[in-house]
This record gives sequence, C-alpha cells and structure tokens, in this order.
Amino acid sequence: MGFGMNWAHHQCIAGLEIHLPDGDVVRTGQFGITNSPSAFLSKFTYGPSVEGLFLQSNLGVVTKLSLWLTPQPQAYMACTFGMQEYAGLEVMVDTFGEMKRNGTIQSCVWFTSLIETLCITGRREDYWKGPGPVPDWRLEELRKETGFGHWYARWGLYGPQRIVQAQFDEIKAVMAARAPTGEITGVMYADDKGVDAASVPPQHGEMFVGRPSLWSLPLINWPIPKDRQGKAAHGDYAPVIPSSGKLLLEWMEATKPICEANGVELMADFFMHERHVVLMNMFTWDQTDPEQKERMNRLYYGLYEEAKKRGYGMYRGHINHMGESGTCVVGLKLTRPTWQT
Amino acid sequence: MGFGMNWAHHQCIAGLEIHLPDGDVVRTGQFGITNSPSAFLSKFTYGPSVEGLFLQSNLGVVTKLSLWLTPQPQAYMACTFGMQEYAGLEVMVDTFGEMKRNGTIQSCVWFTSLIETLCITGRREDYWKGPGPVPDWRLEELRKETGFGHWYARWGLYGPQRIVQAQFDEIKAVMAARAPTGEITGVMYADDKGVDAASVPPQHGEMFVGRPSLWSLPLINWPIPKDRQGKAAHGDYAPVIPSSGKLLLEWMEATKPICEANGVELMADFFMHERHVVLMNMFTWDQTDPEQKERMNRLYYGLYEEAKKRGYGMYRGHINHMGESGTCVVGLKLTRPTWQT
Repeated sequence: MGFGMNWAHHQCIAGLEIHLPDGDVVRTGQFGITNSPSAFLSKFTYGPSVEGLFLQSNLGVVTKLSLWLTPQPQAYMACTFGMQEYAGLEVMVDTFGEMKRNGTIQSCVWFTSLIETLCITGRREDYWKGPGPVPDWRLEELRKETGFGHWYARWGLYGPQRIVQAQFDEIKAVMAARAPTGEITGVMYADDKGVDAASVPPQHGEMFVGRPSLWSLPLINWPIPKDRQGKAAHGDYAPVIPSSGKLLLEWMEATKPICEANGVELMADFFMHERHVVLMNMFTWDQTDPEQKERMNRLYYGLYEEAKKRGYGMYRGHINHMGESGTCVVGLKLTRPTWQT
Repeated sequence: MGFGMNWAHHQCIAGLEIHLPDGDVVRTGQFGITNSPSAFLSKFTYGPSVEGLFLQSNLGVVTKLSLWLTPQPQAYMACTFGMQEYAGLEVMVDTFGEMKRNGTIQSCVWFTSLIETLCITGRREDYWKGPGPVPDWRLEELRKETGFGHWYARWGLYGPQRIVQAQFDEIKAVMAARAPTGEITGVMYADDKGVDAASVPPQHGEMFVGRPSLWSLPLINWPIPKDRQGKAAHGDYAPVIPSSGKLLLEWMEATKPICEANGVELMADFFMHERHVVLMNMFTWDQTDPEQKERMNRLYYGLYEEAKKRGYGMYRGHINHMGESGTCVVGLKLTRPTWQT
C-alpha cells in the first residue's frame, strides 16, 4: 500500500517475468507474447491469470514487474479532517467510506488515533510523567492542548485543478452536514506544467507526493526515556476490517483495554480502501527490557484472539507468527495446493 | 468489460468460492476465513493469490463470486465527442488516454467508427445500393448527412453533481484546446436521492447506467438485404493495443484494406483502458451464403496476421480459433503448467 492515486499497488501490476525453481521462465498477461508492446500496459490476461501466485510468495523469483505510476498532476491538495470526539470515528469512517466508493476520493485516506498523531513528534515522557500508559484524563488535556482531535484523517487529491477543487468543496460540504464539529483543511499546490513533488513542503508532501520518507520513524522512540539507554522496537497487529464506523469503533473499544493491560496506549492507524480498511494496532517498546518484551507478546496474542473471534484476517504478519497466520488468516484454503504436487 | 465506474469487472472481484474437479473447495482472499465479514469486500489476499486461476478457465467451478457494484450516484452525465476528420482519431485517443490516466474519467470511453455508428440504425442497403462495401466517397457523404463524424466517443460521468460538472468542464476545455474541430455533448441527470437508472432515456442510458441492453444487436443485420431471406451472423477480431493514437490509426489503416478485400467495410470500435485499448474489428455476414462465410474466414486470418506481426494479443477468441490463440496470444508461457501435473 502507498498513499497516492495508484496507492493499492496490488492493483497496479501489469506484466511479470518469473523464474521458477526448475529454471522455467513465466511471463504473465500480454508479456506472454514476445513482441507485445502492451506487455507492461495491460493488466489483463487471455485465459486464467497466474500473476497472483507470485505476489507475496516464494513460488518463483520475479525478475521483471511493471508497476503503474501516477502522471504528474496539474494540482495536488493536501487535506486533513480532525474530530475532537472519540465517538466521531463512526461518522468519519462511514462518510469517508461513501466518498471512497462514489469516486470523490481516489487516493488512500489515512486515519490516526491521537496517540499515534502525538508519538511522531515526541516521547511518552514528553506528555505524561506518571507510570504506565497515558491515562484518559491526560489524553483529554493533550487533545485540548494540541488541537489534533481524537481522530485525524489525511489524504491527497490529485488531478486537474478544477476537479481537485470540486472534490474538496464536495468533501467539505458533506462533512459539514454529517460531522459538523469536525475541522477540515486543504492546501492546494498547482502548476500547469505539473506539480513538482520536491516543491511541496514536508508537512504536506513526502509520501503523499510519492517521495519515500522515514518521517514517521521517530514514533518507535515513544516508550524510551531520554535519560536512559534503551533500544526502540515496534510491532503491529494488522487486521482487515470492513469499512464500517460501527465495527471500527468496536475494535478500538475492544483493543484499548488489551493495550493498557500490557502497559501501552491504544496507538492505532488505518488505511481506508473502498470496502475494507487495513488497521494497524501499533506498539513500541524497549527491546532491552525483558518485561516489556513479554508484555508485547501478551498484547500480540490478546489482539490475535480478538481478531480471530471477529473473523478478521491479517494484512501482514511477522515470521514469528506465521503459525497463527496459517490457522486464522491465510486467505485461501486449498486442501491439496497445486504447487505442492 | 462493462461501461460504468466499475466497468473493468476483472478488477472488481472480491472473494471466490470454487469447487475443484477432485471435490475440494477453495475460497479466496478473506473468504478463506470461515467467519470473515470482509469475505466479499476485500480484494486482497495474505500470501499468493489464486483467484486468477479461475477467471476465464475451466480449472474449477466458481460457485460464489463477489462483484463490486457502483453506488447509485447523485449525478450521471451522458457524454459524447465526435470528430469529422478520419485522422482525428490520433488526437482523440491520446487526449482521452491522458484523461483516463489522470483521474478525470473513471469509466470506460467507448469509441466507434462511422460504419459502426451507422450500422446500429440501418442496413448497408439503406446507405449504399451498389456492389461491395460502402466506398469512401459515399462514406464521406454519409458523414456529412448524419453528422456523426468518422470517430465518435461515448462515456459516462458518475458521482456528486459538482464533481461531474467539473469533470465535464475540464474535458470540454482540454478537447477545445487539443481538438478544436471536435464536438462535445453532455446531458446531466441528477437527483439528491440518487439517479434512477430507469429514468434515463435509452439514448443516454441503458448499459451506461447499468441496464443490460441488446441495443446494438441490430448491427448484425447490416449485410442482409430486406427483400431476401438470410441469417445474420457476426464475428470480431479483438486485439489488445497500447493506448496510442498513432498505433490506433496505423491499425485502422492496416486493416481497412483487409476488410474491403473481403467485401466488408472497416467496422471498428474500442474500449479505452488507462494504458491499453481493447479493439473490436467487427464483421457481419449472411451465414447461409458459403461465399460470404469463406470471405469472413479469410478476413479473420488476415487480421490475425496483422496482429501477430505487431505482437498484439487477443481479448477474446472463438473456440474455432483456440489454436492461433495458443501460439499467438495466450497471456502466459508455462513450459510445464502446474495444473497439468
């Protein structure tokens, strides 16, 4: 996943060349024709498609792959929407979901919880001096101090300027009607020759304009006090959840106590597809501290049990957890997989 | 392929259930989890994806399949753009192609040649009394009489009304600058409760608003004189061609003489994807006439040779031509296909 117009990379692949373990070479789609000028343009295949077998797999070595890019747009708008109310998540998810499905927003909408918004710019001790995770009353204070809101959505609009402006006007009107306490911002960058990604300042650009960034990396230092040695680590549990405000809010309610019981705050973000979201329950710890490590292990399994109960598959998993992935979340069920014959 | 927002059906499938020949059941994507609420929402799989194996194939019987639908839009605009100049095809393809790639047009853009535009509403004898295909000078007369233009593009815009309007304004401005001799039309249908497909008159609606239609079927009667018994048939050669005005014009120039040498006009249409088009060289004949049948056979192989030379694969083929499909256009090259082990 990425952030711009062609952000669902899985959907932007056109033509693969794969070397199989026995030395055979497979070319997919139009690339199966030696002299095809559509080899890397068309995603479609005559007959069954085998591309999928080589995505996220070790069934072969992919030696060529075409990934569609987004043409440099005439206009780019960096947009945010924040809500101060914790329960506002529900209306935000449902309304942005509708706008993802009706074509208003063609890119990714990225939601972050207040803790995840804060952790990019500071450590826990900057916000809370007491023991354990930041308590709710202090989080409320921080919300008022920073103005970030409990939920904060970011997305980009890309294309001809008049269409980008109309999209923003529409989103603004829809959100004003459906979630009037929320706050929207939009900053337009436009150039008839195409917006130069390098000209967009970091707070509005970076990965939103296709420039890889380690901007969010400082979040892993969240639990490390500045006056003490330690080695930051982070992990996440990443369930696939239907794009439903009710289900998202339920997930937050269910997992917040599991986080807190293991000494960390609910640090969540998610990426909104048309009909599902990919959620990240993030957690960071000091890997030199065996107790924190053990707690993170308990946290992981706590989240896993919640996801399993709800039938939520996983977007990605650490190799340490491939076993659970296999029983709970692998997206296919072949009693005799053809590639094991 | 279809016509609306989710027209590339291949890209709108989320979750399959397949019965394999040996009785095993395969469920793909999130549907691999028995109780997943995302089974039919998410197109993505954890690990390799096997969906593609069961598209356009006989490797199993698909017993469940989710196909994303387009939400009823607040506005729908029926749009056309026509050019009187034969060579106008080049600028039309290149400019609409850019607008497909920059997000301006999210649906299919469907191009038809003058003969294909005419054949829906009449037979050859309505337009030309002489022997053989309609000659160029008569086609020129027909162009002026009907006003259809040599090339005629149709597409729909769907979504919130202000965005649809901005998209149309943009297309109009871009085409006025790039192809000033062309003529654009756009008719808006809007309803805050959602446009009712049944309320859109046939000339603007039908398949463009998701209502299956046999509207174009009369085209097959094109070669059958009204005063004579006969049995209409049609076929097509459907190459996949890069979305390039130059290459499309070259294809028309190359195939028009092949059509005419076999007694029919260039009857072509194509469906514009982001980076390739699916072209249909249509041909219709009287299947009770052995001579016409033989000519159509020669025409098919003539088109096949042209496509092969250019490395153009095929979108679809009749089972009579599976052999050529296998050597020329099958989109994969597996020396030992895993499903034959």
